[in-house]
Amino acid sequence: MVGRKVVIVGSGFGGLAVARGLEGTDAEVTIIDRSNHHLFQPLLYQVATAALNPSDTATATRSLFSSSDNVRVLMDHVIGVDTSRSVVLTDQSGHVAYDFLVIATGADYSFFGHDEWAEHALVLKTMDDALTIRERVLAAFERAELEVDPAERARLLTFVVVGGGPTGVEMAGAIAELGRTTLAGDFRRIDPQEIRIILAEAGSRLLRPFCPQQSAHALKALAALGVEVKLGAVVQQIEDDGLWLGDGRIDASTIIWAAGTKARAAAKWIGAAAASNGGIIVDEHCRVPGHDAVFAIGDAASQTAADGSILPGLAPVAKQQGRHVARMIRAQLSHGRAPRPFRYHNWGMMAVIGRSQAVADFGWLKVNGLVAWLLWSIVHLFLLIDFRSRSSVYLSWSYAWFTHGRIARLLTRGSATAQKPLVTKEASS
Amino acid sequence: MVGRKVVIVGSGFGGLAVARGLEGTDAEVTIIDRSNHHLFQPLLYQVATAALNPSDTATATRSLFSSSDNVRVLMDHVIGVDTSRSVVLTDQSGHVAYDFLVIATGADYSFFGHDEWAEHALVLKTMDDALTIRERVLAAFERAELEVDPAERARLLTFVVVGGGPTGVEMAGAIAELGRTTLAGDFRRIDPQEIRIILAEAGSRLLRPFCPQQSAHALKALAALGVEVKLGAVVQQIEDDGLWLGDGRIDASTIIWAAGTKARAAAKWIGAAAASNGGIIVDEHCRVPGHDAVFAIGDAASQTAADGSILPGLAPVAKQQGRHVARMIRAQLSHGRAPRPFRYHNWGMMAVIGRSQAVADFGWLKVNGLVAWLLWSIVHLFLLIDFRSRSSVYLSWSYAWFTHGRIARLLTRGSATAQKPLVTKEASS
Repeated sequence: MVGRKVVIVGSGFGGLAVARGLEGTDAEVTIIDRSNHHLFQPLLYQVATAALNPSDTATATRSLFSSSDNVRVLMDHVIGVDTSRSVVLTDQSGHVAYDFLVIATGADYSFFGHDEWAEHALVLKTMDDALTIRERVLAAFERAELEVDPAERARLLTFVVVGGGPTGVEMAGAIAELGRTTLAGDFRRIDPQEIRIILAEAGSRLLRPFCPQQSAHALKALAALGVEVKLGAVVQQIEDDGLWLGDGRIDASTIIWAAGTKARAAAKWIGAAAASNGGIIVDEHCRVPGHDAVFAIGDAASQTAADGSILPGLAPVAKQQGRHVARMIRAQLSHGRAPRPFRYHNWGMMAVIGRSQAVADFGWLKVNGLVAWLLWSIVHLFLLIDFRSRSSVYLSWSYAWFTHGRIARLLTRGSATAQKPLVTKEASS
Repeated sequence: MVGRKVVIVGSGFGGLAVARGLEGTDAEVTIIDRSNHHLFQPLLYQVATAALNPSDTATATRSLFSSSDNVRVLMDHVIGVDTSRSVVLTDQSGHVAYDFLVIATGADYSFFGHDEWAEHALVLKTMDDALTIRERVLAAFERAELEVDPAERARLLTFVVVGGGPTGVEMAGAIAELGRTTLAGDFRRIDPQEIRIILAEAGSRLLRPFCPQQSAHALKALAALGVEVKLGAVVQQIEDDGLWLGDGRIDASTIIWAAGTKARAAAKWIGAAAASNGGIIVDEHCRVPGHDAVFAIGDAASQTAADGSILPGLAPVAKQQGRHVARMIRAQLSHGRAPRPFRYHNWGMMAVIGRSQAVADFGWLKVNGLVAWLLWSIVHLFLLIDFRSRSSVYLSWSYAWFTHGRIARLLTRGSATAQKPLVTKEASS
């Protein structure tokens, strides 16, 4: 069975895990992704808030497989799949044949039926998104420094994050630290008290996956950073220069949407059944029912655990599923025994709030504050995939921690003072 | 004389030197620049070729003056100067009054009357320019990997640098190293021999400011890197997908223009006489004749030395002029004695060709090869203005040197596969 073709769509945590698991086998592995890099998404918010450089949290996918002759990487857009002929249809490479197909296309932000809000709200999924947020926040400060009209100054210095999950909490905390600590001293006319960071959550508490006590800790820690947390605040409308929450209008320069995700539109490629969040419903081996050679993993999939719960959209789930799919394919290549059904090993979860503030829940142990933050730092440091990123990120962090400095405070892309939203248009794949 | 207002337009080497020289004085110093960062231009080509991160070669200007209460920074576009009322006219901050004005607006690329070429050729002046080149080069490789038509593959893998001065030489060398060494191993279908890097120089030798022997060394070193150097090659026409040189047409994906600069259009703000390259003609104190309170320095100025030569457009000239202007202003603030006329101290010049290849000319000593490269590295390391950049750049370099790796190989900005030129439009200021 030499030369069986495995096509992996997506170079996120899931897709990479499959490819890694097939390195050195007889399979001809092709990774297709529309971007040229693997993104370490858990740290992307630090690029958005100027603490890290883009290359600290992303690596050229191609360079990860330099020494694996059986893995090739195509930067291309997938536009569909023809399951009857077992080919992936791409924008530039034409038809790419597969014997096994792995859909690992990840998730995108969902505006809950208000797609028009995407024009005004920023999201944080791609490197482009992160750079756009960084640019918007830094430009808002620069403009506020020049602005004489108090109402417009107040608007420029108001940053709203929608969604009190882990991403929303870390973004709100990081913007508060960037604004009130790092930048405040550099501007002559901006009073740190003028800066408003609002975190709006529709539910009754932050960090829903955590226990109420940890939600309360996060609320307190954010308040200490100067973040106004609004619970039970449902967004009614998002406009260019502000938004309507339950209790009225807030003028804001920057609105960041972190309120919900949906799987990218891969289910329709194969005519598969999708869950309400768009994830392709898969069996206990991450296979798409009716397509034995097609797998879906990570945020692109919706898998029900043995206990009846739906697996969450987390990096560890995607990685473990990816390793499982690689085992499945290896077993078929060698006519070996199929592995046992996939079971997600939950090692715990963490959410970072700010400098030396986090919450961590390992099931048997819950910790908050500095200890949780240190654990978070260590875990994320070791999770970073290549040595180069690891050492550089560590230096950037150490530097930022000791000096409150931000290294990546650059306005580029000629759009520095533009107020127009810079939402990146993304084609499917 | 408390509170005399000094306005500096431009935050390059010259402008910063003036501001540094006035820190802690009674003067109220305002730096106006359209970008928010000071650029360490000598290393910008390394950002363009993915060896360094943007923040390694740029620092938020504001952060450089955090602790200087008498220096403020405005990110704004200057649209003119009203010398009769001593105010600078800006786009957003309105009129900014000055007692002393320093024009340090730098230079832009000149297409020698063919401004339409700017649509097709890339330049390297701003951070945006560098990121655009990086994107274009990396995307060309990605597209070539997918391309089946041999002619189009050849075009995609052809990179032309126009201009054999220091910038052209370092760009050609860096692209050759990026393509043939770093990237070659990561692509499955690209044969390093397919990659063409052409350096076109209209004159009879490279690096004209250096001696012919060093020009010859550069030519040989570039050839060893696989760069085709074409001397006496005059550009006739630049088009979207190639260019016409003296000896015919070359299809190319990437054309980088490094053939000539002109001062930015600041002379007309004050109705001053300009040299042929657009530089404001200044006296021996960098003053604009007829405007005792107006100075011009660096690439924005044209100053004749005591020996009758025009000072070159180099960073050390701008810095030394900036320090001189600061002394002039300090003398006037304190009614002290004016300094002696400005004299440029030429400590030598260097041009880097590639990894461990450079030429250096200190007048009394000329060195080539590894020794010159080590000197170049050390000098540029120490010139970097703040510690953070220094340590990080050093690490990036060490890493790249030992591994041939490139850390910043990211395609972002949603334009990865776009073939359309991404030339940044720049307004004046």
